[in-house]
Amino acid sequence: MTAAPPRQFHLNAFLMNAGHHDAAWRHPRTRPERITDLTYFQELARTAERGRLDSVFFADGVALWGNARYNAVGGFEPLTLLSALATSTEHIGLIATVSTTFNEPFHVARKFASLDHLSGGRAGWNIVTSGNAAEARNFGREEHLDHAVRYERAAEFLDVTRQLWDSWRDDAQVVDRERGVYTEEGAVQAIEHRGEHFRVDGPLNVPRPPQGHPLLVQAGSSEDGKEFAARYAEAVFTAQQTLGDAQTFAKDLRSRLAKYGRTADQLKILPGICPILGDTEAEALALEDELTGLQIPAYGLQQLSGMLGTDLTGLPLDGPLPELPAEHDINGNKSRFTLVAELARREQLTIRQLIARLGGGRGHRVVAGTPEQIADTLEDWFTQGAADGFNIMPPHLPGGLEDFVDQVVPILQQRGLFRTEYTGRTLRDHYGLARPAGRSL
Amino acid sequence: MTAAPPRQFHLNAFLMNAGHHDAAWRHPRTRPERITDLTYFQELARTAERGRLDSVFFADGVALWGNARYNAVGGFEPLTLLSALATSTEHIGLIATVSTTFNEPFHVARKFASLDHLSGGRAGWNIVTSGNAAEARNFGREEHLDHAVRYERAAEFLDVTRQLWDSWRDDAQVVDRERGVYTEEGAVQAIEHRGEHFRVDGPLNVPRPPQGHPLLVQAGSSEDGKEFAARYAEAVFTAQQTLGDAQTFAKDLRSRLAKYGRTADQLKILPGICPILGDTEAEALALEDELTGLQIPAYGLQQLSGMLGTDLTGLPLDGPLPELPAEHDINGNKSRFTLVAELARREQLTIRQLIARLGGGRGHRVVAGTPEQIADTLEDWFTQGAADGFNIMPPHLPGGLEDFVDQVVPILQQRGLFRTEYTGRTLRDHYGLARPAGRSL
Repeated sequence: MTAAPPRQFHLNAFLMNAGHHDAAWRHPRTRPERITDLTYFQELARTAERGRLDSVFFADGVALWGNARYNAVGGFEPLTLLSALATSTEHIGLIATVSTTFNEPFHVARKFASLDHLSGGRAGWNIVTSGNAAEARNFGREEHLDHAVRYERAAEFLDVTRQLWDSWRDDAQVVDRERGVYTEEGAVQAIEHRGEHFRVDGPLNVPRPPQGHPLLVQAGSSEDGKEFAARYAEAVFTAQQTLGDAQTFAKDLRSRLAKYGRTADQLKILPGICPILGDTEAEALALEDELTGLQIPAYGLQQLSGMLGTDLTGLPLDGPLPELPAEHDINGNKSRFTLVAELARREQLTIRQLIARLGGGRGHRVVAGTPEQIADTLEDWFTQGAADGFNIMPPHLPGGLEDFVDQVVPILQQRGLFRTEYTGRTLRDHYGLARPAGRSL
Repeated sequence: MTAAPPRQFHLNAFLMNAGHHDAAWRHPRTRPERITDLTYFQELARTAERGRLDSVFFADGVALWGNARYNAVGGFEPLTLLSALATSTEHIGLIATVSTTFNEPFHVARKFASLDHLSGGRAGWNIVTSGNAAEARNFGREEHLDHAVRYERAAEFLDVTRQLWDSWRDDAQVVDRERGVYTEEGAVQAIEHRGEHFRVDGPLNVPRPPQGHPLLVQAGSSEDGKEFAARYAEAVFTAQQTLGDAQTFAKDLRSRLAKYGRTADQLKILPGICPILGDTEAEALALEDELTGLQIPAYGLQQLSGMLGTDLTGLPLDGPLPELPAEHDINGNKSRFTLVAELARREQLTIRQLIARLGGGRGHRVVAGTPEQIADTLEDWFTQGAADGFNIMPPHLPGGLEDFVDQVVPILQQRGLFRTEYTGRTLRDHYGLARPAGRSL
């Protein structure tokens, strides 16, 4: 008999075109010409799978993000891309972002159910409410829905999608040719949802997914976001700059679970980290500087203006930020606003310095160091209650993911912190999360 | 020098779970247990590609079609499924149905652009306006939008999606690392659409698709449908019972093209045919009888009630149809209503006989015969101006498609009517349709 394995953590590969650094596309190790080349993403997904990572993940917005003049933005839509990647991978989870603000629950429930069937139970949904007026303007609205209304809509959206996934019983298809009965009476049932935001009769036109429900992921860290996560999410992606902040966030989020009848092991917290790797610390710092040197100030200023809900055009780059609005006046990504404002205040950064700090991770933590140093910081956060795993955001792709898989993952495996082989078949298996029970007769 | 090849026709494989016959799932040659098994559809798509067919196609609705108690209904969502099939095929076109009534143009433009990139230019969109109140009730509406309003919305929907596909110039991505310019000024432009049904700023967040626009397919044969097809469609799927009707339809449709500045070679007309094959005509007829014998009357009656917009429950199966409404009172699929009503009237069919006649193709032509006989009827319709190709609807799958590919296609190839190898790379190439020009500077 072997002893129970030590508690291990989870790793998600957050993939993004040329990489997470906003100047990555200008670096010689990246391939921005390949962002609409499926084989590029097949290679990335296989690299992540070679590292035994839990999942790959794509962020998403329903507008062009960033200025295409200055960055390798645009490309595949996540659900179509992940459906194609399902066929070139065997184990790794496939997580797509889809907004509850600009979609209908029937479509979303259906597409994730379809992806879950296609992939043999590897689908995950990163639920976002969208934070961007440009997205609203692609859907007939001038302004974005109010933050609180978005979360109300999101909650009802989840209630509907979960009912739709359960509208077929797990064993619905009896396929009795002799009797002429494909599903038994009552095995496929309408849901007749009548709510504030949605009226949906159902049933879904897809049998119940292999995982019951796809893995539910959430990434907003505002008050509304945390409450939503505590109620619905099974994994949370979050941007945290310091161990202390991450511990506070994790403790807060876990404390909200009990009132929804949930326990801490049902919610995996994965802070983002952009690991800038070098054989020596000096090499890593040199790479970070090289990437900073490739940044385009006009691009960084636009991105920062967006995050802060404040037009910074024309301000001196080497001066401080102007007076900022309060979080309650921000109708976009509230938690990201506060994180960036806090970072600038705490470290007294000029606009140029802030653009450099945000270039790698858009507010997520950036750590430059050796593979040992990266492994150390992951272990620290994990053992000190700040994380159940990490959202790995390679600064440049494909090299930054290859380096992480080849250099950091083996150290984590040697320390017993990370799996050496997949032991389960589904994304829920990888994250150690139970399959939701379906309806019974 | 070789002579120009003779005019050839086009073949689309219309795939549907266990096959097109409503009792197919009860037949021993079908595999209704596999309708959520990706490998089943991979095998079907590869079979169609082995036959050098132009495309595979999935119908779609945003509600469960038919009664799951009595038929193998439900399954994959077409866009996710075709994205996965893109990776297991190399040449064949991939056509998905998506409704303009229950979707937003930004999502649809984006997903088809993504599929077109994933597949190297093999995406096609079968544009439908949906004909089913059950679909409306999954999207917050009690009743279906009026037929004419649906087509108005569809026209504006197409105007928006075509602008979105063109919002990136073909050569937008210059990827100039030195200058720090990813796309040139003006190469990616907002569309600022302001219409009756949609307001969409754009640009799309996907570079222009390899085909410029995915192939545009349409399948409604009502007056509104024909006018829409003449204006927008590049291929038309249509249900026609007789050569005369098909000739009249084709002539009518072609006559509408000039006012949109289009010519007959820009629109391919593909009537549906459900080929029931046997080594002898007697064997084919026996198979047809076998399938009819497996039909479940309660299912057929529900389907017929739906097509006729008339509740037939309780009527004697061996009696005639009751008085039917007029086409202008039908708010679903008007052309299918008229076709079925006409068929019943012309042939003086009882309800039971009508259910049998509709079992194979739901109104599409069903022909039972030898491979030679099937090839003859295809050739007849083609040479007599009724068709530019055919929408092949195998009565049972996978066998019905395998039989068609192995037994009928070689005859068509020997007669010089069908390609023996793919000569192009994209779906537009297969159908001999030009790539729409994009914006230039």
